[in-house]
Amino acid sequence: MENRYDVAIIGNGPAGLSAALTLKNRNKNVIVFANSKTSSKVEKAQEIHNYLGFPEISGTDLAQRFLEHAKVSQVHIVEVGISVVYHMGEYYGLRTRNNEMYEAKTVILAFGVQFGKLYPGEEAFLGRGVSYCATCDAMLYRGKKVVVIGNSPQDEAEANFLADLAEQVYYIPNYKKVESLSEKIQVIYDTPVEITGDAVVDTLVCKNTSIQTDGIFVLRESVAPAQLVPGLAVEDGYVVVNRKMETNLPGCFACGDLTGAPFQYMKAAGEGNVAAISAVAYLAAQ
Amino acid sequence: MENRYDVAIIGNGPAGLSAALTLKNRNKNVIVFANSKTSSKVEKAQEIHNYLGFPEISGTDLAQRFLEHAKVSQVHIVEVGISVVYHMGEYYGLRTRNNEMYEAKTVILAFGVQFGKLYPGEEAFLGRGVSYCATCDAMLYRGKKVVVIGNSPQDEAEANFLADLAEQVYYIPNYKKVESLSEKIQVIYDTPVEITGDAVVDTLVCKNTSIQTDGIFVLRESVAPAQLVPGLAVEDGYVVVNRKMETNLPGCFACGDLTGAPFQYMKAAGEGNVAAISAVAYLAAQ
Repeated sequence: MENRYDVAIIGNGPAGLSAALTLKNRNKNVIVFANSKTSSKVEKAQEIHNYLGFPEISGTDLAQRFLEHAKVSQVHIVEVGISVVYHMGEYYGLRTRNNEMYEAKTVILAFGVQFGKLYPGEEAFLGRGVSYCATCDAMLYRGKKVVVIGNSPQDEAEANFLADLAEQVYYIPNYKKVESLSEKIQVIYDTPVEITGDAVVDTLVCKNTSIQTDGIFVLRESVAPAQLVPGLAVEDGYVVVNRKMETNLPGCFACGDLTGAPFQYMKAAGEGNVAAISAVAYLAAQ
Repeated sequence: MENRYDVAIIGNGPAGLSAALTLKNRNKNVIVFANSKTSSKVEKAQEIHNYLGFPEISGTDLAQRFLEHAKVSQVHIVEVGISVVYHMGEYYGLRTRNNEMYEAKTVILAFGVQFGKLYPGEEAFLGRGVSYCATCDAMLYRGKKVVVIGNSPQDEAEANFLADLAEQVYYIPNYKKVESLSEKIQVIYDTPVEITGDAVVDTLVCKNTSIQTDGIFVLRESVAPAQLVPGLAVEDGYVVVNRKMETNLPGCFACGDLTGAPFQYMKAAGEGNVAAISAVAYLAAQ
């Protein structure tokens, strides 16, 4: 298998890139999975005053610096989201949103806290009609009706994948322009309001209409940590870590905003560094 | 009292300066105590590859960048060592090595781990003839003989202070050239080997000679954390902190190398950031 690494890092913000640099320095075989070219959160910051070494730098410039540093250090960044991480004992299996599989001996979670607000009913029906991963759960909806809520053109591939199996796919884009959706899919321009049903999902209530459906796929840039990594310990929505950035799963580390406040670039970069060193120690002990 | 601050930071390496920047951003009244102009440890580093944002920078350049950033942010740095920190309940009292007193509502310890190797017998006789602070313990040696082991010209002031009280002061410089020592003091160019005695210290054994003495002052750039802050919890020589960088003493935080491995600039700067945010929260709750 070619897609096999020492360390898989999910997220390319300050935490993920800092971890990647340190791991490259230690000659580890590292891959970084990124939802987008730069950390959108760093980019959005107008001016950053307390990232030591850069007095008054804009978020855009700082993000650029981070990526340049990663480039100089030959960090391998792949622009694809991860839909699920399975703990397989000796290693971790990572499934990308375009259905490729990767293996890594250790995983560093560093994808921040932009999970988006949940729809009413979303959590209650999770696993009972609500899913975050088309490539994982498509088979359950063979010959059925599903709704896909997409948040970026990247999500259209998943909807297309579903369209080959499901009887009918409705697609609700939470963005301006649909780019490459299959003709079999019916696009609905509306705003989801609530997910309802009885034992299982039966309706997606929108602002202007209600859609009868067997399943609802909510595709966001990031899914919540416990959804992404089954078995991961989370408290108040944040990944539980100790001072070594170890999670409850051996070989799985976390750093940056998803470990909780303060939500600061400096803290994230520092934690990424610690997570990397801990991963190195874990690999050495294997 | 004029020397009164919201936060006193001891140390001007990445941890201390990172904390200072964040506190300035939050409009806190901050003072940084520094043994020397820059963190000697950062300066000594040939090349640093994993401080995110600076691909391949020398230790000297990075230290310079850090200090410039502190300057731009108008961080108040005082070049004097701290000999002891007293927890006074509502606030902390800090005594400098030239015997000035400062008060701060919170203290951030960030002075690294360059405590120097202890002399055989040093720890055993601590408080029984061995002292790290002339201005604290001079009165105990009125009319007696003491030896001062100095590690930099800065230490000569403490020896001079002792010379006004003690009957005889011997000074052993662990550096090249004595600069401004009182004429009352006898300089001995020799290498300390061991501290001996019975119930209390009686002899400093050196390579070429042995000095009969009532007290031995060992003056180093940094003293061990538990010596500097009486009551501070330390484990294996490192300050015990939680994820918020809180120590066992309320209002006292620690960050950087003195909290333990990994000894990395990025980790230190990240921890400084967290310590600062925790200090802000502590002040707000007062």
